[in-house]
Amino acid sequence: MPSVPARSEGSEPFSAVTVVGLGAMGGSLARALAAAGRPPTGWSPEPGERREAAESGALRSAPATLLEAVNGSDLVVLAAPLDVVCRLTRELGGAAGPETVFSDVASLKAPVQAAARDAGLRARWVGGHPMAGTEASGFSAAREGLYRDARVWLVADREADIALQRVSAFWSRLGSRPERIDAGRHDRLMALVSHLPQLASNVLARVLSAADVMPGELGPGGLEATRLAASSPAIWREILGHASPELARALRALGSEATSLAELVESGDFDTVEELMEQTRAWRKEG
Amino acid sequence: MPSVPARSEGSEPFSAVTVVGLGAMGGSLARALAAAGRPPTGWSPEPGERREAAESGALRSAPATLLEAVNGSDLVVLAAPLDVVCRLTRELGGAAGPETVFSDVASLKAPVQAAARDAGLRARWVGGHPMAGTEASGFSAAREGLYRDARVWLVADREADIALQRVSAFWSRLGSRPERIDAGRHDRLMALVSHLPQLASNVLARVLSAADVMPGELGPGGLEATRLAASSPAIWREILGHASPELARALRALGSEATSLAELVESGDFDTVEELMEQTRAWRKEG
Repeated sequence: MPSVPARSEGSEPFSAVTVVGLGAMGGSLARALAAAGRPPTGWSPEPGERREAAESGALRSAPATLLEAVNGSDLVVLAAPLDVVCRLTRELGGAAGPETVFSDVASLKAPVQAAARDAGLRARWVGGHPMAGTEASGFSAAREGLYRDARVWLVADREADIALQRVSAFWSRLGSRPERIDAGRHDRLMALVSHLPQLASNVLARVLSAADVMPGELGPGGLEATRLAASSPAIWREILGHASPELARALRALGSEATSLAELVESGDFDTVEELMEQTRAWRKEG
Repeated sequence: MPSVPARSEGSEPFSAVTVVGLGAMGGSLARALAAAGRPPTGWSPEPGERREAAESGALRSAPATLLEAVNGSDLVVLAAPLDVVCRLTRELGGAAGPETVFSDVASLKAPVQAAARDAGLRARWVGGHPMAGTEASGFSAAREGLYRDARVWLVADREADIALQRVSAFWSRLGSRPERIDAGRHDRLMALVSHLPQLASNVLARVLSAADVMPGELGPGGLEATRLAASSPAIWREILGHASPELARALRALGSEATSLAELVESGDFDTVEELMEQTRAWRKEG
């Protein structure tokens, strides 16, 4: 009987990776893989983006069709808007080979998990969400180091334990910090740590713009606080459509806290304002 | 009659500068002057800070008393909390020589202008407000480049036209962008471009902390949006105590915008949410 070579500690968790979607997120993943000497196969519905990514050296190959791109891959990472990720998970689940592991970088995990279960991918789907991003979009915004040191949340059904280990190793090798989480808990957490800061930035920008302030008049703190207001509305529309009810509650809390603070400022109660600032300072410095 | 040497274009606007207060703001000014080969005299009420600044090489001298420090100076820049700047402007106005020009880096200008007028400094006071800062405090947070490329608002009475030219040249030589503004207009603008983003960050931090989110769970956007929440409550207390009524109005607008957005999200009206995001994106990209 021929001896079967044991999988060594240092071996690559996947030998043929395909990245679907070559915008800022997928493009950054391709660039990181290329920088590690393992450029993936890449595909984008936009021929211009596909060509740009291929010409940058970030891809091993850039086939013209999606089916060619995923054919023979042992890991397919979907890096597209949430609704496209859900649709492609359903469509490709049957089309790709039976050993192919599916992953993605979508900001919410419960909708993708539902799609993966529908597609019969319980043992082969490991959803991912890197806590990294940019308000810019397109391959030109892709950066090799985007995911370095970033927490990457991973969601998987119990049947996918082996695939989870491999996808976890995949991200660790790129210098990211993978961590397993339940889809529901992830999506509730995102309402607070991602969606709320995004919309708080939009709300602040709206008040400033209504008051005829120009961005050039802001100081560095104001520019920073409104940076997310430049994020893609189309991408956020999809995310918000699937957001946890926690988000609306948190937005209401934001509204009532702002109104209370207005009252404190108006009534000259700066003891309470200072106390509130002490509390938030202590909280922020914990991190 | 001996010829009087004309003041050349390239000559220094001031020959003996004193910086009073050696925290992040005053310390950064001292470091910038030292880097330009013209370290100032420095004073701080805290002996440890004075020593730290002197040992760093940022100061020409660090006398033990404030009066020694301003004696013989032709420019005194007060870099202290707003109430201290107002008090020192009143006290030093009489104590310093009749040629001394007074300036400051306080975030509001009308209260300091009132103090300068009380002290009979109409022709010798040029209030300044650099649009730069840090949420950290103390000389250890001082950076040579803090004011480089920063807009510096300058406020002066008509009697101070010559002093204004000199203070303007002083900041230009440090690579800043001085620009004259009326004190009232400045303070109303600050309520929007500086105080509102600060408090919006505190409000967001408060909602996140009440929901038991830890800062370490935030992504880069959330960390950025809450960075200002770590600013010094004591310094902000003074500023907010003198803030324009515009601030409370803007906070109320923030509260009602956040509540409206919560309603849109709850009712699933994502067309309107997307439109709102398009507007703020267009506004933010103008800058």
